[in-house]
Amino acid sequence: MEQPIGVIDSGVGGLTVLHELKRQLPKEKFIYLGDTLRCPYGPKQEHEVIQYTWEMVTHLMTFDIKMLVIACNTATALVINQLKEQLPIPVVGVIEPGARAAIKATKTNHVGIIGTENTIKSKAYETALKSIKPSLTTVGVACPKFVPLIESGQFTEPGALEIVKESLEFIKDHPNLDTLILGCTHYPIIQPLIEEVVGEQITVLSSAVETGFEVSTLLTFYNMYNSLEGKLEEPVILTTGSLNVFQHLKEEIFQLKSASLKQITLS
Amino acid sequence: MEQPIGVIDSGVGGLTVLHELKRQLPKEKFIYLGDTLRCPYGPKQEHEVIQYTWEMVTHLMTFDIKMLVIACNTATALVINQLKEQLPIPVVGVIEPGARAAIKATKTNHVGIIGTENTIKSKAYETALKSIKPSLTTVGVACPKFVPLIESGQFTEPGALEIVKESLEFIKDHPNLDTLILGCTHYPIIQPLIEEVVGEQITVLSSAVETGFEVSTLLTFYNMYNSLEGKLEEPVILTTGSLNVFQHLKEEIFQLKSASLKQITLS
Repeated sequence: MEQPIGVIDSGVGGLTVLHELKRQLPKEKFIYLGDTLRCPYGPKQEHEVIQYTWEMVTHLMTFDIKMLVIACNTATALVINQLKEQLPIPVVGVIEPGARAAIKATKTNHVGIIGTENTIKSKAYETALKSIKPSLTTVGVACPKFVPLIESGQFTEPGALEIVKESLEFIKDHPNLDTLILGCTHYPIIQPLIEEVVGEQITVLSSAVETGFEVSTLLTFYNMYNSLEGKLEEPVILTTGSLNVFQHLKEEIFQLKSASLKQITLS
Repeated sequence: MEQPIGVIDSGVGGLTVLHELKRQLPKEKFIYLGDTLRCPYGPKQEHEVIQYTWEMVTHLMTFDIKMLVIACNTATALVINQLKEQLPIPVVGVIEPGARAAIKATKTNHVGIIGTENTIKSKAYETALKSIKPSLTTVGVACPKFVPLIESGQFTEPGALEIVKESLEFIKDHPNLDTLILGCTHYPIIQPLIEEVVGEQITVLSSAVETGFEVSTLLTFYNMYNSLEGKLEEPVILTTGSLNVFQHLKEEIFQLKSASLKQITLS
């Protein structure tokens, strides 16, 4: 019996990470839990985020997961060290993979980060970037309009490009910036719009993509690759909230049509 | 006293990996050993490559290295599993990071690999790629003219582009191929020529760059980052052969001017 990899998020944003994990590691089994009922975690008190995250983790541990991916920037910033210390399995967050990928990509050593107000305020990416490479210049800007744009589905409408343009105005003030981290797991959904606005000179990095790469690396080092050769198992998606938004996203955006979907209650 | 990261190669090719490690991890200390006297390992017998590699590793272990990077495709293919089993420190090769990066990058699931005759014959990249993602289409082609072109220094001359063009003729037969792995640590030195020939539609991946990323990932997971905040130490480069070629390369190509250079004897 192959053990699954557990993925948690406050809501649907982490599906970008699940999609990448499945694409980069098609032989692995995944179980995803989105706490949509209490989403978003951003404006919540710190102790609440810690409690909610532990509730999700405790639930997933009953599925005998072999690795935990925290596909949520807020939860990564607040709880990852606790989880790493206390869980008997490897724990991967979304911040460090994004930071490392930016260090790999930048030639000018000038890196931008966009994310929610809370992620930008936490300076979690800046801390991760500078702890590895102190000489970097960084700029972090919140794009509070992006999550509503994505969750409402309006990102496919003509006005969306204008909203993205306005939110990324700051780029013009940083002509040396050559790398932009999407520091929110929702943002890869509008990555084509972001790339259109920033132009070819700037490398846009998705934390979701880089987290997939990091999980792949760790599977080798912990010698944990799934040896399953036969039929591939589709991911299991659990949510504390409505099934509707997952149903739509998993089919229309993430090519996860055959993933099973189930509502659960966390206490 | 901070422990260094050890890097071994049969010769000078691994300097591309050292350069990337230093760029991505400026706070770390490195010690490099190139067995130039017995280079190249490609045409050697398997038991010789194993013996030579162990001699290099044994020498570097006396410097109390905290991690070992095998910056040589031949040695990675033949000895990495032994080293992983028997050494008390983490061991990183160049093949898996390159393979994983290709899986991350490809959209068409059609990946090319170029390398020396031996690396291509070993099918080490194909094995690594398909063990993770069996649905990939791969094509491996040897480019035996590249290493002489680089080691002779002629890659800066006008005829070089023509040689690269001829060697990469096979690309035309694979219109679906969107990702090309440089499966030899020498090749990043002529990456601009390779990119000019293959065009913008193909992502060219350097195993050297990806190995830097993998070492960075593992340093976090083993909680082994250098805490050094003060003066950065320059790499130490050891060679069993002539100092001349290292002297030229480290200054002209790799911006490792202040790295110290020393000739040693392995028994």
